[in-house]
Amino acid sequence: MINVGIVGATGYGGRELLRLLCAHPQARITAAASTSVSGDPLAEELPAFKGLIDLEFETFDADSLAKRCDVVFVAVPGKASMAPVAALHEAGARVIDIGPDFRLRDLSLFERYYGVSHTAPELVEKAVYGFPAWYRESIAEADIIAVPGCYPASILTPLRPLVDAPVSSVPLVVDSVSGISGAGKSPSQAFHFPEMNENLKAYKIGNHQHIPEVEQELLNRFMVQFTPHVGPLTRGILTTITLRPKTLFDPAPFYNCYEKEPFIRVLGEGKLPDINQVRASNFCDFGWVCDKRTGNIILVSAIDNLLGGTAGMAVQCMNIRFGLEETAGLKWAGMTP
Amino acid sequence: MINVGIVGATGYGGRELLRLLCAHPQARITAAASTSVSGDPLAEELPAFKGLIDLEFETFDADSLAKRCDVVFVAVPGKASMAPVAALHEAGARVIDIGPDFRLRDLSLFERYYGVSHTAPELVEKAVYGFPAWYRESIAEADIIAVPGCYPASILTPLRPLVDAPVSSVPLVVDSVSGISGAGKSPSQAFHFPEMNENLKAYKIGNHQHIPEVEQELLNRFMVQFTPHVGPLTRGILTTITLRPKTLFDPAPFYNCYEKEPFIRVLGEGKLPDINQVRASNFCDFGWVCDKRTGNIILVSAIDNLLGGTAGMAVQCMNIRFGLEETAGLKWAGMTP
Amino acid sequence: MINVGIVGATGYGGRELLRLLCAHPQARITAAASTSVSGDPLAEELPAFKGLIDLEFETFDADSLAKRCDVVFVAVPGKASMAPVAALHEAGARVIDIGPDFRLRDLSLFERYYGVSHTAPELVEKAVYGFPAWYRESIAEADIIAVPGCYPASILTPLRPLVDAPVSSVPLVVDSVSGISGAGKSPSQAFHFPEMNENLKAYKIGNHQHIPEVEQELLNRFMVQFTPHVGPLTRGILTTITLRPKTLFDPAPFYNCYEKEPFIRVLGEGKLPDINQVRASNFCDFGWVCDKRTGNIILVSAIDNLLGGTAGMAVQCMNIRFGLEETAGLKWAGMTP
Amino acid sequence: MINVGIVGATGYGGRELLRLLCAHPQARITAAASTSVSGDPLAEELPAFKGLIDLEFETFDADSLAKRCDVVFVAVPGKASMAPVAALHEAGARVIDIGPDFRLRDLSLFERYYGVSHTAPELVEKAVYGFPAWYRESIAEADIIAVPGCYPASILTPLRPLVDAPVSSVPLVVDSVSGISGAGKSPSQAFHFPEMNENLKAYKIGNHQHIPEVEQELLNRFMVQFTPHVGPLTRGILTTITLRPKTLFDPAPFYNCYEKEPFIRVLGEGKLPDINQVRASNFCDFGWVCDKRTGNIILVSAIDNLLGGTAGMAVQCMNIRFGLEETAGLKWAGMTP
Repeated sequence: MINVGIVGATGYGGRELLRLLCAHPQARITAAASTSVSGDPLAEELPAFKGLIDLEFETFDADSLAKRCDVVFVAVPGKASMAPVAALHEAGARVIDIGPDFRLRDLSLFERYYGVSHTAPELVEKAVYGFPAWYRESIAEADIIAVPGCYPASILTPLRPLVDAPVSSVPLVVDSVSGISGAGKSPSQAFHFPEMNENLKAYKIGNHQHIPEVEQELLNRFMVQFTPHVGPLTRGILTTITLRPKTLFDPAPFYNCYEKEPFIRVLGEGKLPDINQVRASNFCDFGWVCDKRTGNIILVSAIDNLLGGTAGMAVQCMNIRFGLEETAGLKWAGMTP
Repeated sequence: MINVGIVGATGYGGRELLRLLCAHPQARITAAASTSVSGDPLAEELPAFKGLIDLEFETFDADSLAKRCDVVFVAVPGKASMAPVAALHEAGARVIDIGPDFRLRDLSLFERYYGVSHTAPELVEKAVYGFPAWYRESIAEADIIAVPGCYPASILTPLRPLVDAPVSSVPLVVDSVSGISGAGKSPSQAFHFPEMNENLKAYKIGNHQHIPEVEQELLNRFMVQFTPHVGPLTRGILTTITLRPKTLFDPAPFYNCYEKEPFIRVLGEGKLPDINQVRASNFCDFGWVCDKRTGNIILVSAIDNLLGGTAGMAVQCMNIRFGLEETAGLKWAGMTP
Repeated sequence: MINVGIVGATGYGGRELLRLLCAHPQARITAAASTSVSGDPLAEELPAFKGLIDLEFETFDADSLAKRCDVVFVAVPGKASMAPVAALHEAGARVIDIGPDFRLRDLSLFERYYGVSHTAPELVEKAVYGFPAWYRESIAEADIIAVPGCYPASILTPLRPLVDAPVSSVPLVVDSVSGISGAGKSPSQAFHFPEMNENLKAYKIGNHQHIPEVEQELLNRFMVQFTPHVGPLTRGILTTITLRPKTLFDPAPFYNCYEKEPFIRVLGEGKLPDINQVRASNFCDFGWVCDKRTGNIILVSAIDNLLGGTAGMAVQCMNIRFGLEETAGLKWAGMTP
Repeated sequence: MINVGIVGATGYGGRELLRLLCAHPQARITAAASTSVSGDPLAEELPAFKGLIDLEFETFDADSLAKRCDVVFVAVPGKASMAPVAALHEAGARVIDIGPDFRLRDLSLFERYYGVSHTAPELVEKAVYGFPAWYRESIAEADIIAVPGCYPASILTPLRPLVDAPVSSVPLVVDSVSGISGAGKSPSQAFHFPEMNENLKAYKIGNHQHIPEVEQELLNRFMVQFTPHVGPLTRGILTTITLRPKTLFDPAPFYNCYEKEPFIRVLGEGKLPDINQVRASNFCDFGWVCDKRTGNIILVSAIDNLLGGTAGMAVQCMNIRFGLEETAGLKWAGMTP
């Protein structure tokens, strides 16, 4: 049994970690830290866990967590995990961070997109990008794992294998639609139910903080024109990527590398995913169309944003890190309906 | 490992059984029968299971299923399970039926509400009503388990313990709102997305086929005025019950019987459930208000209709029947969000 | 042309008034007051009105409004309209209040349910309850019109004609489900999109502030057991009323009084409304079932909560008050889809 | 008063025409044809119109319609309007067709994308493309008006003014998300509520039948890479267009042509539309971002697909054709919420 702690357990990412870990056959939730509700029974704050988790929220204490937990998940908002990750690492804990603070290697990009200086630059180098398909071996030995963002997970899964493909230098066009859980639990006018129901909109065009993360993991081979959207659904990201080959090529062979990936499903040419098939699962499904008329390739991928690129991928990283069966606690099909 | 078969695996109830069983630590899905798509790979018909279940749909064959499976779940529409359940029983299989055909003891009520004669009346007597809280011991030895309906599960959980309470003879008023998955997978004008989105309506007032099931399991002590509704959500039932006590009483002591129930959460006076807290889980949450002004008690319960009263309760029955840990494969908190 | 002013024009009720009045053939929107955004162009704060309304929000000034407007709509939250209505009345304006402050005749009930003393008790007597079907003549001469609440509109339309019917003294059971726009525009955790999507819940059982309003307009003949719910839709209320006749009677003749009502559609026995048919319209549709088995009558009604019992009924009152065609600006069918 | 007839009045486009025309100050609905329900009272088939329209559906009869109606709207599915439009024209009626049959000048493209030969090629030449901003004068005299498709309306509004802008020859990337009403009223597995709620998907990539229409109206200056999506909303289209300028330019001046357009709202640089602001209105809102990093321009537009590019634009064409105020019956703000 792996003893796990979760920091920031009341947010949407943290709740999903609780949900996955409380049914995980080899994990025991030992500690849940949330300063705002510290001292309160977890099941009172989060009644979905009544009868399942019998813990009180505790104040963040790196030493105590490091002592009691084999691994600590950090699920706090962007820019807020630098400090606790550093403290936990210092205290000797293994850390899996689902936030963005340890993903960007180039700290000047971190500053530009997040608006603050990084307070633990030396740890950025130590952190491993928690994308199992490409970093499985490093993850297995990492002390700090930085789980990819949700948009990046949906974009990189179909794109990364194409870094060596004959693609033109025109920026790739990436249009994603995300469910609203991606914006977190804090209420706002924009995400008040009557404002988002029957609504859809684009936002942060050209300056979303996930752009440098995506380009970094594409090895800076491609420039990405990223337009995120939110729509009237809670979970899920559908990403549509239009890329311009130098000459039209068949992308299928590039995806052979995914043959044994337990949570990546390559649907193939002419087969398009939908969110329905991956909701509440750790899968990323994708397919594509080669458009002979235009000479373009259009890739479409689907994930559940709270699992892929968040809690599910984090648990997969934990499984790898601790030598468990990689799919332990994650063998869930998409919820249809 | 329990070898399980599922008959009617493409419907919404069947898919949810597949979803639960494919992640169940002690079950192995051995056969999935669905005559309409027999011969097709399951993962092609139901792409959510790609990479998880490597089976082909087979034609229903009672003998073959009985031979290969420790238990067979039957998940076909109402009136269609009499024949396969009888055949499976004859062939020696243990059967868990999530349909309505073996729930009503009084066959004249079956005829009146379902419009057909029962073709296996002798098996109705053998069948055990699969409500663990009241029939756990019989379930443990049953050859045929008839899992409660989804509305009945949401109504009976709070009401059954009150059969001996001082309630007046005025019919109980039960207003339920169900998600649309309860109507099954067949498309229809009524449940076409643009017709149900932003919509809500009542139907089958006073003649819904779940009424006699509810009254039977209330030991015919109460008459029930049941008004079902459908609303613009996929999963979940919220049931509001207004009962008229002879004199206002405290219902809490009646619920002591549920103290050790793993999937019934008694929230208490003034605490009301919502579907959010039980979605994608096997829990039934309920609470109540004693209204001093009117002298009434109002009980409100919430379930996920595809788990409670359907696939989740069916798996719980299987666990009981085979001496497994009762919560095996079901330790899931509600999905919030 | 009637010159109209709107106080509280940024709220959901106020916006719907703007929407209706800006397309009204005989009304001109002359002033929109909203202290929080005073000075801002209306079309910037509310971009849906760009190109339609060329006004700036102004600070509330009763004298100025009274001078420039033939009628002033007040659309501020409960308890907040006592002061502006009194000031406007004092300044000589005709006022249509869509809030609750001038609906309850019994001021002790106002205090009990709203938690404050009424600051303009003398005006409560002058105010006319803005339900055209019963108060059309008084509305035509009223200086202050208090438009019914949305729940009351949906409840009273089918029930009021039955006050003389042979109904038993058991409290009527009223279960309503409302869209979330009824809770207003302020964001909150409870109505954050991911919390309400796929969710449904009951609230304020037995103590909702609309109870005394309903009982008053039922002439205190019936006691009402009212359980409001919210569900995952933006607009609409579906109300299900279970009443216990002394002996079962045919309600149809009681509804003859509605024969000429332009916005009440009596669907009849066995015909049930749905929100779809009234969305974005001023109609209240209702039908019923006489349940011979239980001896009860179940009435079901549907309205769009932002029109019926809010902006639509307010405009209808204006039409009556100013001798316009009663349906002017309101001849809209429900939006299906 | 203009006497109007509607052919195909039970479909979603037809219903929206009924809804708009029944509140139009200068139109009278004289006839509604729908062969499938001919003889039935309109208000029984479409209960939203009870109390508003007192007609029976009639069988299609071109002569009779031509005699009684000043204009006939044809709202039948694609490929099905060639025959009735020809018959109506022959009978002397003025026709406004909301389907695709008379939009494509190049009949070989019609054959390729619609799979049938055109049966009234001589009328294609006579038909005027019903986009008021560019064809207002021709519309004013047209006998046959072919209202643009919903996707084209959302794409062409921001793009058409840029045909002379310095745009590179790389295909424009157009990703649209549509509400499900765009797929029409016929129920299907794909659009069954539980399959589309919380879902989103792309379809018909690179071969959607609106592609040649868009390219034609872009004067074949641009090639369009069009990826349509459907999401869990009933109404609305959000279109995101990524174009690659030769060198980055300011698009604002190109939109001066829209200054007096009553239903086109140019939001400007950095201002993005959302569906909320146009729902239930005839507006098309659009804005853009010039991305200095990539050198691209991203345009985003929003319409209500049942008004813009369908019933609303059709009524606008009628207003123009008959010399009415262009905005008559259409002065509606977006429904927020």
